[in-house]
Amino acid sequence: RSGKMAKLTHFIDNDVFRAFATYTTIVLLKMMLMSLITAYFRITRKAFVNPEDTASFGKGESAKKYLRTDPDVERVRRGHLNDLENIVPFLVIGLLYALSGPELSTALLHFRIFAGARIIHTFAYLIPLPQPSRGLSWAVGYAVTISMAYKVLKTALYL
Amino acid sequence: RSGKMAKLTHFIDNDVFRAFATYTTIVLLKMMLMSLITAYFRITRKAFVNPEDTASFGKGESAKKYLRTDPDVERVRRGHLNDLENIVPFLVIGLLYALSGPELSTALLHFRIFAGARIIHTFAYLIPLPQPSRGLSWAVGYAVTISMAYKVLKTALYL
Amino acid sequence: RSGKMAKLTHFIDNDVFRAFATYTTIVLLKMMLMSLITAYFRITRKAFVNPEDTASFGKGESAKKYLRTDPDVERVRRGHLNDLENIVPFLVIGLLYALSGPELSTALLHFRIFAGARIIHTFAYLIPLPQPSRGLSWAVGYAVTISMAYKVLKTALYL
Repeated sequence: RSGKMAKLTHFIDNDVFRAFATYTTIVLLKMMLMSLITAYFRITRKAFVNPEDTASFGKGESAKKYLRTDPDVERVRRGHLNDLENIVPFLVIGLLYALSGPELSTALLHFRIFAGARIIHTFAYLIPLPQPSRGLSWAVGYAVTISMAYKVLKTALYL
Repeated sequence: RSGKMAKLTHFIDNDVFRAFATYTTIVLLKMMLMSLITAYFRITRKAFVNPEDTASFGKGESAKKYLRTDPDVERVRRGHLNDLENIVPFLVIGLLYALSGPELSTALLHFRIFAGARIIHTFAYLIPLPQPSRGLSWAVGYAVTISMAYKVLKTALYL
Repeated sequence: RSGKMAKLTHFIDNDVFRAFATYTTIVLLKMMLMSLITAYFRITRKAFVNPEDTASFGKGESAKKYLRTDPDVERVRRGHLNDLENIVPFLVIGLLYALSGPELSTALLHFRIFAGARIIHTFAYLIPLPQPSRGLSWAVGYAVTISMAYKVLKTALYL
């Protein structure tokens, strides 16, 4: 058993894989933060979507008025969905890329730029910053993922 | 070739990895079930969103009235999106965690609690159970993912 | 170090894993294309959701009229969300399946059918083709994922 365990933990001895694990975890924790920000705005703006969530405000009409959309809540939710749409491809293409044997410095460049771009994207969406801040930060993350996908296909292509 | 195949299948010989594969598959099958429940409510409630989906109900106004939202359909869809937002981080952080060499008993504890919490979350959302059932089951899954992320960063941190 | 690197790149020497990497990347690039199609329709239909995105159309009422939903934009967004709901399970169950030691020919069959089904699903959604085109292509991708999940649980089950 311990020999097999050692084999799996070879991943964690590899610098490219450690860098992937680190930046992936950072990006996912950032994405998970969106849930807390949504909850924060739902509670402070009193804007809920499920009737059972307003039960503590009383019964009938007094509670029903809190079943409404709020622009700040919807903004955070759009940012969260945009994270899902862009971070999911990064996670899987990034894992395949890490396994395709890139140079450590090149891999770090990809992971750092992606993580930085998505953090800037979140600030650009939530503050919000004037365009093209959000558009550009989105495009940078998108381009990094395309670049890694190109390396994966060049290394692994098997149709 | 067979030597290389053997190397890859070492994963499946590792108990932590087998546990990860099992609970991950269970959680994903549960998430996929949401698609079937959405389809069930769309058909029984006659509540569709695409005009081409109502063509079998006839043409013109007779079909158009089925292009509408239904509270039960929307509730399942919110549960499905909540799954995506919470299960995606678990999948990737859980994989990195499984590769970081945790104790089998600790890993099983994380995977079992997460899977249980998400199954309870689904019942709490769909029945629906009074709050804080849904909120608590969400928080438990969230906390398990944070705990695994902490172990990954402690083991692998490479900025 | 180079010994460890070599170990990780063994993945890329394995035909099943190369096939998984190839079809996964294709499916994810297809999903990422949905973002560009959404942006294309938002710009050509002049239908935006964030006030800061319409700033270039002037101030006040003249810009506000572009904050609206458009059926074509909403259709692409539904296709994108359907991708997320179905491709995420494929990615993770497919990875576990590739590590469970399937026959190369069986694995290729699964990956090719899934990728083909999701590409047809996108055309069926966006053109749109009459039903049951979209329903069937969705069901085929769903069934492929269930088939791989069955193999994973049969090989790895560890509760």
